[in-house]
Parts: sequence; C-alpha cells; structure tokens
Amino acid sequence: MVIGILGAGQLARMLALAGKPLGLKFIFLDPTPIACAADVGKHLIGDYTDKALLTQLADEADVITYEFENVPVDIIDFLNQQTPVYPPAKALLIGQDRITEKTFLQGLGLATAPFSDASSLAELQASMPEIGYPAILKTRRLGYDGKGQVVLRSAADLADAWEAIKNAPAVVEGFVPFDREISIIASRSVSGEVAYYPVSENNHEKGILRLAQSTQDDPMQAQAERYIHTIMTALDYVGTIALELFVVGETLIANEFAPRVHNSGHWTIEGSETSQFENHLRAVMDMPLGSTDSLGYAAMQNFIGNVPATEKLLSLSQVHLHLYDKAARKGRKLAHATIRTDSLEHYTDLISSLTELAKHSDDS
Amino acid sequence: MVIGILGAGQLARMLALAGKPLGLKFIFLDPTPIACAADVGKHLIGDYTDKALLTQLADEADVITYEFENVPVDIIDFLNQQTPVYPPAKALLIGQDRITEKTFLQGLGLATAPFSDASSLAELQASMPEIGYPAILKTRRLGYDGKGQVVLRSAADLADAWEAIKNAPAVVEGFVPFDREISIIASRSVSGEVAYYPVSENNHEKGILRLAQSTQDDPMQAQAERYIHTIMTALDYVGTIALELFVVGETLIANEFAPRVHNSGHWTIEGSETSQFENHLRAVMDMPLGSTDSLGYAAMQNFIGNVPATEKLLSLSQVHLHLYDKAARKGRKLAHATIRTDSLEHYTDLISSLTELAKHSDDS
Repeated sequence: MVIGILGAGQLARMLALAGKPLGLKFIFLDPTPIACAADVGKHLIGDYTDKALLTQLADEADVITYEFENVPVDIIDFLNQQTPVYPPAKALLIGQDRITEKTFLQGLGLATAPFSDASSLAELQASMPEIGYPAILKTRRLGYDGKGQVVLRSAADLADAWEAIKNAPAVVEGFVPFDREISIIASRSVSGEVAYYPVSENNHEKGILRLAQSTQDDPMQAQAERYIHTIMTALDYVGTIALELFVVGETLIANEFAPRVHNSGHWTIEGSETSQFENHLRAVMDMPLGSTDSLGYAAMQNFIGNVPATEKLLSLSQVHLHLYDKAARKGRKLAHATIRTDSLEHYTDLISSLTELAKHSDDS
Repeated sequence: MVIGILGAGQLARMLALAGKPLGLKFIFLDPTPIACAADVGKHLIGDYTDKALLTQLADEADVITYEFENVPVDIIDFLNQQTPVYPPAKALLIGQDRITEKTFLQGLGLATAPFSDASSLAELQASMPEIGYPAILKTRRLGYDGKGQVVLRSAADLADAWEAIKNAPAVVEGFVPFDREISIIASRSVSGEVAYYPVSENNHEKGILRLAQSTQDDPMQAQAERYIHTIMTALDYVGTIALELFVVGETLIANEFAPRVHNSGHWTIEGSETSQFENHLRAVMDMPLGSTDSLGYAAMQNFIGNVPATEKLLSLSQVHLHLYDKAARKGRKLAHATIRTDSLEHYTDLISSLTELAKHSDDS
C-alpha cells in the first residue's frame, strides 16, 4: 500500500518511519528540493498547486494525508476526486482561520479565550475594552510556532502591532491566565474507532514548543477527551488530531486544534505502546488502532537551531535521539530527544540534563 | 554519517530503520535487484566480488558492516584498506567454518557438542562410534536456517546423508539432549563498551527459528554473559553478536555464534529500551551504547512463506507488525510480529494467538 503525503518535513519523515514496518511505501509532494522525508520515500518536487504532480500523487497513492494544516482546501478537493484524503477537508477549512475555528469550538459548547475580529486598526481599537489587556493579536490565517502573533500590553501597542502583522486580517484574543498548557492527541479511524493518548503538558518559549511531558492520571484527562471527542465527531474526523488547551483551575480552555500528528506527541514514539504516527497511518488505512498505553514516564525536548553533540545525547541512558536530517538554521526545529523511563527520579534528572543541553544549543 | 552494508535483506532494512532517527544514511551492496532494504537507502546492485562497486561502497560509506556471515573474508580485507569494516574479519573467518568455530570455542574453555571432521563417507563412518546416535551431519560452510544439515539416527542413514550434502566437507556433531535452546545477544563498541541483552528462549522447527521469547532473570543469564564476553574479547569484536546455546541441566553448550544482528533479537525493537539494531550502529560508530533494559515481557513470532492478514495481526493489542516487503515464497522469512506487554497473562494469550496464526500461514 502506498501513502501519499503533502509535505516532506519531519512529520512526514516520522510517519514514513512508522509505516515501513507495516510494509507501507510513501510518496511525498513538497516544493523544497532538499526535504528531510525524501530519504524514506519518493519525493515529487514541485508546488502544491501543480496539477500534474497532484495527479501523479493521486495516481500512485492509495490514500493521501498531509503534514501541515495550511494546505489549500481546493487541492484536497482535487485529490479527493481520485483518491481518498484524510483528515477531511472540513478540518482544514475550519482550522485554517482562527475566527472560524474559535466560532466552531464555541458552537460545540467548548470554552475558548475571548476573541474579536480585527479587520482594521479601528476595529482592533474598538474591541479592546471588551477583550482587555494583555491580549494577543494574531493573523487569522497561516500562523504557526508563534509566527504572526504580537502581544498587546496596553493601548499604546496597538498601532505598532497592527503594523507588525502587516495589515493582515486578524483576530485579537484575550490572554488566558493559565496554570498549565496541555494538549491531547487522539486518533480516529475511517470506521470511527477512537484512541486517546494521555494528555501532554507543554512548555513553550517564544511561541515554540520546547518540552512536552506525558502525564499519568492527569486530572484533566477525562475533560480533555470529551473536548476532542466532540471535535472529532463534529468533523467526522479521520487520522491523528491534536488539541491545545489551557488549564485554568478546573476548566479547560480550547486554544486550537491541528488536523495532523503534532510536536507535543513525539514522545509517543518510545513512550507509548503505539505512536501517534503509527496510529495516524492505521486510522487513514481503516486498520484497528494500536494501544495508546504509556510505557512509563516520557517526555520530549525539542532542539531548535542547533543540536547538542550526538555523543552527549546518546551517553544519557534512556534518552532516544531523533535527528530530522535538516540543515541548521536559526529558529528551525532540527531534532528532538525523548526520555522514557520507569523511574520518576531518573526522569526528573534527565529532564534537567536535556533542558540544560537544549538551552546551550538553542538560538531561536 | 553514511553506513555501508553488505546485503540488503531484512536485517539491513531494520538496521536502516533504527539508524534514520540517528541521522544516518545507508548504502547497500546486494546482487538481488529487488532487495527489501532498497526502500530505505541507496542500493548498489551487483556481485559482492565486484571491485568497482566495493570501491564505491567504501568511498561513500564512513563505516561498513554486513548482515550475513558468509561474506568472503578477502572482500572485508579489500574494503578495510579504505574504510573500517565491523565486525572484524576474524569473526567471519572463524564463524564461517563449523570446525574452526567449534575448535575456537573449545579453545576458550567453552563447552560444545562432541564433533568430528567428516571429509569423506569413510571418515564419517569411522567417527560415529565415538559421536554416537542421534547425530547431525552438517556442511562445514554456508549453512543457515537448517540448510545443509541431515539428522543421523543409525548407521543405515550415513550413506544417504553423505549423498544429501553432496560430498561437501562436513562435520558430524553429537546431538545435545537440551532442555532449552537459548541465545544471548550483546553489543561491543570500538572503545570496548559492552552491553548484554537478556537471553532469549528460542523454538526452532525444521531448522528455522519460529518463536523467540525474552526472559527475565533467567538462571543462565550470568553464564551466557561470561560465554559471550569471552568470545567478544577473543575476537576483539565490534558490533552486535549473537551466540546460540543449548541448556542442559545447569550447563550451557555453545552451538554457534553469528557476527551480526540476529533473528532471535528482533523482539528488542519494542521489548528493549534500545534495540539490537540501534546498538549495532552505535557500536560500529563508537558511540555510547544504549540501555538494554527490557520493557516488560516480549516475544517474537516469525512468519514463514505466508503472512496472516495485517488486519488480524493489528487487531491484537500490544502486537507490533514488521513486514519485510519481500515477495512470498515457500520457506522464506517474510515478517515477524512482536508482543510487548507488562501483563504475563496477556503475554501468554498473545503467544497462543500468534503461534496459531503463524501455524495456519506457514508453508515451510
């Protein structure tokens, strides 16, 4: 069976590495001539709008998926005429626009941060009394890893912020005074079988995920599962999905969902019986999902811009290295390391060691 | 870093899949045009004696290894002039001839089955009074998976047996009345760091491994580690090595070693903190070795000739499938499945399910 993937970055690479043992072959479409998944499948180099390449992808693949949420929906519709594409276009359509997404989430009865449309500086200024400070101005579309976001601390920030996002249609969101940032990852198959991972507790810096820790019996697990179940059902979702959440006291505030495998679930490769990548593949092939049970304490540390020396990382017992085979560049996600251990003490020590190593190599 | 591998079968494939997350690239030399590792690296198609291809392999690789023990030693010597090859040629030289191997093992003080050179039918007949029945006549060289072996039950079998192995130089071995067949796998790095896996308890049928089960606190573990440590030291070994052993009461009888990753260690992919494949790569790159701690109960079931339906295998919770992407052929190893679980009861149930499934698909 051949899986087609739009995008050939590290998520596509890790999908392919999870799929090879299942006997799957992979074909990627990605405009970047040197793409890190190219080493584990066939790489069609060209634009995502190239009809000839899209047709070739649909011809050669039995099922198609994607590794990023900014895929134009008309491309999905085009591919779908020939070959099934999962997750469904509806998930993209809603997820690609922050206002549509927040409206969708509220429509499902899920709590979100207060937000308001900001199509002009005047509109932004007018909505601030209700939203309050601090707040975050975000472009409605195409934001990721903190890109296209500006923090607003007072009215004096508004004009510069509006300038900074280059007059793009935007949304202003009230800042959520969260106790913790968590995410829940789940998979849903074509037949509707669902599997949930334990929630991940996440630390971001400068808008980029740094550390994601698996949890055990997290008090918010059941509520998080209800949230993501509601979303998956509404979207008639197929594949792995991630929902980022803020914990405020005993309440969960839905931030955003990603219709794909997610950085905060990378610890599932070693930390779970079945990884988020394998379960995404099983889901889109309509195969039974694998167990999401944890194998002890697990965490993932991202390496941004630089990676510590391999020898140093491998000398840490129960640390697993994942290099993405990407050229180093400031602010770029180049690798991650996973901790997996049954000892809470060793776990805590390893987190300290890895965050320390990451700090020294980080140039984001 | 680029790893060169002689052979592009399933062992090379699993080495490459273990190495990609470490950022490694792979190049294989294998005469088979359709080789199952070709999907995860560059495949040089040609004979192992092709000097131009060997030179290309040595040019492109930073270190070279192999997936089968019948590599002619002069090829290793040729490659070694340019690029380091591990495990060392000495391991091949000794392991390729059953008499040299048994003599080597006895020279290290390790117990072996009684054996005698059988270079002719007359010599075979002459040695039987001392060896006794039952016994096994084996070609000295190029045997694997029970090929080149004939059981001798009485003097009446000798002439036919000699005919069956086609007059090849042979060894006759006394049958060991073993309680269990086990193997120990270990890795040793260029710097001499050593890691041992828990011994695996193995079931063979018709000379082919069927089921390998990890053990916990096996009473023979310490003795098995001493045996393999002695062998690795004598060979100045680098890489992963497997030693097959017979357990007779409280004694270990050394059967044979394989200077490579081994079928009886496939359960280490999910069942160990670090797999035999990753530790082989770490060893030949002179990187720190990874933990060989077990993650619960683990076992591996081979699928020979046919593979049960993927959906059936994936519906078993805590079973992991490894398809080798090889065309089905009678008696051919096509795939394996690993069980990994913390529940002894579930483990026992899964072993029954898998052996039952394997039995129905097996055509060896």
